[in-house]
Amino acid sequence: MAKVLRIGVLGCGRIGVMHAEMLARRVPGAELAGVYDVVGRAAAEVADRLGVGAAASAEELLDSGIDAVAICTSTDTHPELIVAAAGAGLAVFCEKPISLDLDDIDSAVAAVDKAGVLLQVGFNRRFDPSHAAVRDAVAVGALGELHLVRITSRDPAPPPRDYLARSGGLFYDTTIHDFDMARFITGSEVVEVHATAALRIEPSLADVAEFDTAVVVLRHQSGCITTIDNSWQAVYGYDQRVEAFGSGGVAASENQPEHAAWRRDATGLAAAPIRHFFLERYEEAYLRQWDAFVGAVSTGGAALVTGADGRAPVVIAQAATESARTGHPVSIG
Amino acid sequence: MAKVLRIGVLGCGRIGVMHAEMLARRVPGAELAGVYDVVGRAAAEVADRLGVGAAASAEELLDSGIDAVAICTSTDTHPELIVAAAGAGLAVFCEKPISLDLDDIDSAVAAVDKAGVLLQVGFNRRFDPSHAAVRDAVAVGALGELHLVRITSRDPAPPPRDYLARSGGLFYDTTIHDFDMARFITGSEVVEVHATAALRIEPSLADVAEFDTAVVVLRHQSGCITTIDNSWQAVYGYDQRVEAFGSGGVAASENQPEHAAWRRDATGLAAAPIRHFFLERYEEAYLRQWDAFVGAVSTGGAALVTGADGRAPVVIAQAATESARTGHPVSIG
Amino acid sequence: MAKVLRIGVLGCGRIGVMHAEMLARRVPGAELAGVYDVVGRAAAEVADRLGVGAAASAEELLDSGIDAVAICTSTDTHPELIVAAAGAGLAVFCEKPISLDLDDIDSAVAAVDKAGVLLQVGFNRRFDPSHAAVRDAVAVGALGELHLVRITSRDPAPPPRDYLARSGGLFYDTTIHDFDMARFITGSEVVEVHATAALRIEPSLADVAEFDTAVVVLRHQSGCITTIDNSWQAVYGYDQRVEAFGSGGVAASENQPEHAAWRRDATGLAAAPIRHFFLERYEEAYLRQWDAFVGAVSTGGAALVTGADGRAPVVIAQAATESARTGHPVSIG
Amino acid sequence: MAKVLRIGVLGCGRIGVMHAEMLARRVPGAELAGVYDVVGRAAAEVADRLGVGAAASAEELLDSGIDAVAICTSTDTHPELIVAAAGAGLAVFCEKPISLDLDDIDSAVAAVDKAGVLLQVGFNRRFDPSHAAVRDAVAVGALGELHLVRITSRDPAPPPRDYLARSGGLFYDTTIHDFDMARFITGSEVVEVHATAALRIEPSLADVAEFDTAVVVLRHQSGCITTIDNSWQAVYGYDQRVEAFGSGGVAASENQPEHAAWRRDATGLAAAPIRHFFLERYEEAYLRQWDAFVGAVSTGGAALVTGADGRAPVVIAQAATESARTGHPVSIG
Repeated sequence: MAKVLRIGVLGCGRIGVMHAEMLARRVPGAELAGVYDVVGRAAAEVADRLGVGAAASAEELLDSGIDAVAICTSTDTHPELIVAAAGAGLAVFCEKPISLDLDDIDSAVAAVDKAGVLLQVGFNRRFDPSHAAVRDAVAVGALGELHLVRITSRDPAPPPRDYLARSGGLFYDTTIHDFDMARFITGSEVVEVHATAALRIEPSLADVAEFDTAVVVLRHQSGCITTIDNSWQAVYGYDQRVEAFGSGGVAASENQPEHAAWRRDATGLAAAPIRHFFLERYEEAYLRQWDAFVGAVSTGGAALVTGADGRAPVVIAQAATESARTGHPVSIG
Repeated sequence: MAKVLRIGVLGCGRIGVMHAEMLARRVPGAELAGVYDVVGRAAAEVADRLGVGAAASAEELLDSGIDAVAICTSTDTHPELIVAAAGAGLAVFCEKPISLDLDDIDSAVAAVDKAGVLLQVGFNRRFDPSHAAVRDAVAVGALGELHLVRITSRDPAPPPRDYLARSGGLFYDTTIHDFDMARFITGSEVVEVHATAALRIEPSLADVAEFDTAVVVLRHQSGCITTIDNSWQAVYGYDQRVEAFGSGGVAASENQPEHAAWRRDATGLAAAPIRHFFLERYEEAYLRQWDAFVGAVSTGGAALVTGADGRAPVVIAQAATESARTGHPVSIG
Repeated sequence: MAKVLRIGVLGCGRIGVMHAEMLARRVPGAELAGVYDVVGRAAAEVADRLGVGAAASAEELLDSGIDAVAICTSTDTHPELIVAAAGAGLAVFCEKPISLDLDDIDSAVAAVDKAGVLLQVGFNRRFDPSHAAVRDAVAVGALGELHLVRITSRDPAPPPRDYLARSGGLFYDTTIHDFDMARFITGSEVVEVHATAALRIEPSLADVAEFDTAVVVLRHQSGCITTIDNSWQAVYGYDQRVEAFGSGGVAASENQPEHAAWRRDATGLAAAPIRHFFLERYEEAYLRQWDAFVGAVSTGGAALVTGADGRAPVVIAQAATESARTGHPVSIG
Repeated sequence: MAKVLRIGVLGCGRIGVMHAEMLARRVPGAELAGVYDVVGRAAAEVADRLGVGAAASAEELLDSGIDAVAICTSTDTHPELIVAAAGAGLAVFCEKPISLDLDDIDSAVAAVDKAGVLLQVGFNRRFDPSHAAVRDAVAVGALGELHLVRITSRDPAPPPRDYLARSGGLFYDTTIHDFDMARFITGSEVVEVHATAALRIEPSLADVAEFDTAVVVLRHQSGCITTIDNSWQAVYGYDQRVEAFGSGGVAASENQPEHAAWRRDATGLAAAPIRHFFLERYEEAYLRQWDAFVGAVSTGGAALVTGADGRAPVVIAQAATESARTGHPVSIG
């Protein structure tokens, strides 16, 4: 009978709790083995609710005989924890971004490679069935040669102020998903970045954020041009769309409404809002992300989202930041 | 060079004026040759506007050297005018229904057959590209063996009281289109009719109408079951949908919105009303109906909607009326 | 702190296993307390996988100190188990239909009433957010006076032969959900039933099924007319739609696709199939159904789907069966 | 009674013939008064078919007692013909662009102003009901403060080679419509342009075209950022969409399918292609454009698309061309 993968969760913030709950109940082949958070009370609450232990330190959890770890702590602590987990011989799932610092990423990935463990980075959107269907259309050649990609990624509301102050800003925290998506959909590296950005939503954000609204144009090695548009305040919900256009046609993933009912009267059609935030929209993607992790670890296969996949979007985010500040395109790669 | 078909229009009510305008301007291979209406002023207004003559009588128009005639007068005058037109050797387009009386229909069709002229009955919906696509899916076998058909046909508002008094009621005036559509989509004759009907919209209609809301279930020779639902008051517009279901899949025609824009805010989606009435919704169908007529007359081909197609829905309407009154299914054919 | 409801599951067939899994992991305020099946191996497999005990008999489970029971056994055993559970003072969730026999239903409901326990019948579709939105539009008066309701309910494939032989047939097993939906949407009792039905899908079903395709027209006390159409073989997926039409407008619930991506080339648009069967389509409804049960038991509130709601659709199913056989409408109530 | 506006058409290419046919038959308050083309046979064919005269020269048509003129000749002849028409005291409709040369545009507009005649430039998309609905949502404040606009404008196939050689290229011939749309939707002037472009469709276009695929990012005075994407080869049809996003929500115009029918089988959904080219998609917009012209001339009102509206997109096209060549953003205004 197949061994069940025992996975510990480091970090019990919003995303860590979500992963812990999924691992505790909804991921075949995996079980939650324990949790840790720098805020002991946060870890205790989750541990109690899910019937596991709360470790007194990250080290304690890493050394508790688990098979793998999910790193969901604040970004600045990721590299060090990856190195420690790799040193303990654990398979590692790490939330995005690995780090804002390329040297730290390189050290972490080197440690993983040296230890010969698996590292999977949390670009969950790759596992969304709708986005994946667009990518599959590209990959099988149904769209011919790819000319244009368009990614819309708008949050329903800005992150909390204290989170913002530590997050690295729009390009590192939000657009990073879209930089990954651009690479995922096209299958081609980015060679030039041009960003146009502004602070539009709320003047009071100015002391913790440089930009809250942006358009980023990427030129890929293949010649494809990708356009990303972002906002931190889409009052109508979590707007997540991808479109790919090529010599053979077009494919796109649309938003999903909260329900499938509508109403008509003399004034027209009324229907439901789109799903409001990432837990609703990407629940299936998060579950499939764990299935992929469990599958890769169990079979000794390669990660579907590697350390290199975790590094590349950070390089693009750096270039986007520079471009948005100077107004000029920035070459990379 | 191809001869242009000179067509006269009898009857300058709403539908006659529409046909006259189309023939005057928008039907390649045809031209409006003159008009007549029992209300002289109505004919004069149209004639003047469209630059043709207004005949002093139906006979005068029929004998004016035209090639064909469009009969758009009140239903009770149709058979007599068909006979006269056939006698004059003219190709005949006649609005639906040919008559409420089967004997009159038979006499008119016999006159047409004897004269060897073409008769096309005005079941315009057969020419709607969306409904026709559903029928084509059935006809080419894409849906396999047909099991269920569903027709929704709801007017935005009841007809005027004086029109209602002469129209023969819901089944003869409104559902007659759906009875034709049931035969058109399935390609199979109706053998049993069960109607459930009521007067729901407005008590004041009671003295001119027996029913304003109905569900009619038809059993076809092929075994297919068709369900029609009607109302004279769909406040959201002219609701016209057809769905065909079989062993191989399903096909349907949807309503079309007035425009293709939408808007989202926190309360959800808002979009345009559907097209409000038959001129907007079926404009293209009416034009294609004339193209078919001109084509059939020019090439000596058969009518796409024959006298037999004009007769069959009247038989079904009789059975539906009886069934709605008695509550029991009525066999026909 | 709120007490967790300990629920046992009787019957480990497809639907019982689904309920057991949900109760084990995904229903806040509830936990799976044990299972039983007449096929011991079936119960043992589920019990083992979900970490609970498998009882040796229904009685053993009912007497094991649980708070509530989910009856998911074959229909003929429902009444007896309801009586036993009520006798043990347990809250009861019972899958639909309660029974094919009205006297047995009445006895079971009487036992429940006498014991003063809660009985909720498994009409899960009431808890689907899309259907519920249509009902809410009706209930708040957004559609004005209700004139027409239309329910489409088509299974992707016929039930297994051995299941069919015991199920009571199309009207008792499949349409029973739609009879409930008609009462739920309209809020009005059914007074007349007319069914048109046939065996169309597969001649070999003839020895276990009388009908596999049907149209049922219901007249409600309120004057509303509901049309239901059913098939056991919609090759394109599990087709579940409801539409309500009234003097103020129209509302409808649509099918949901497996994902939200599409593709266009010169031949047109291609998009995903609809969700294939009830576990995919109604997962959220099943979870909400349990939330409602837990809420009602915890607060001492009334069931949202009562014994009377379980009885009424069986009466309609009887009338539909008679009508389909005789061809004539059948009055009830 | 209202005077009918007699309008002559200069230029009998594809677009001139379309205008002549509309004016001859479908524009209330206007009539076609004559046509001219440098290729006499082209003018004669149209004149004969529509029952008007073909002038021997542009001057002859301008002096023939007409009220207004539609200039549909090749772009390089526009300014001279505008000046001549203005000198003759005629109201002028001129196809876009007025000219590729700003000085020529200025001279033409000056002549129009001096003569006190009306000049309306042929930016037909402003009159499309779907795009106009998006603009109206912006204009009435339904979207709050505007942050992002997105325009997709993709032709089904590249223009003919000989047309390309004279057209000024992608930005002057195709994107010019989108530059106008950006100003129309936002109501704000463009202050910076950044274009990323490539030649992707067909290497053989290289000797007549610099770019066939482009993304243009515009920064408006208001702070809004508009993104345009273009291709000359959307094999799935004429892709024309606009989306506007602001602090209050989002609005968009979608493509319209050729018909409203769909089909489902086990492989999913299939539906119709979008309308294939500009005559199908923008027919209603072209008719409304003429209604606006007739209305403005008849009432002495201002043009809805002025000389200044004709000039501004040419300035943007110049900047886009420079940006695409240098890779750097270009400031204007």
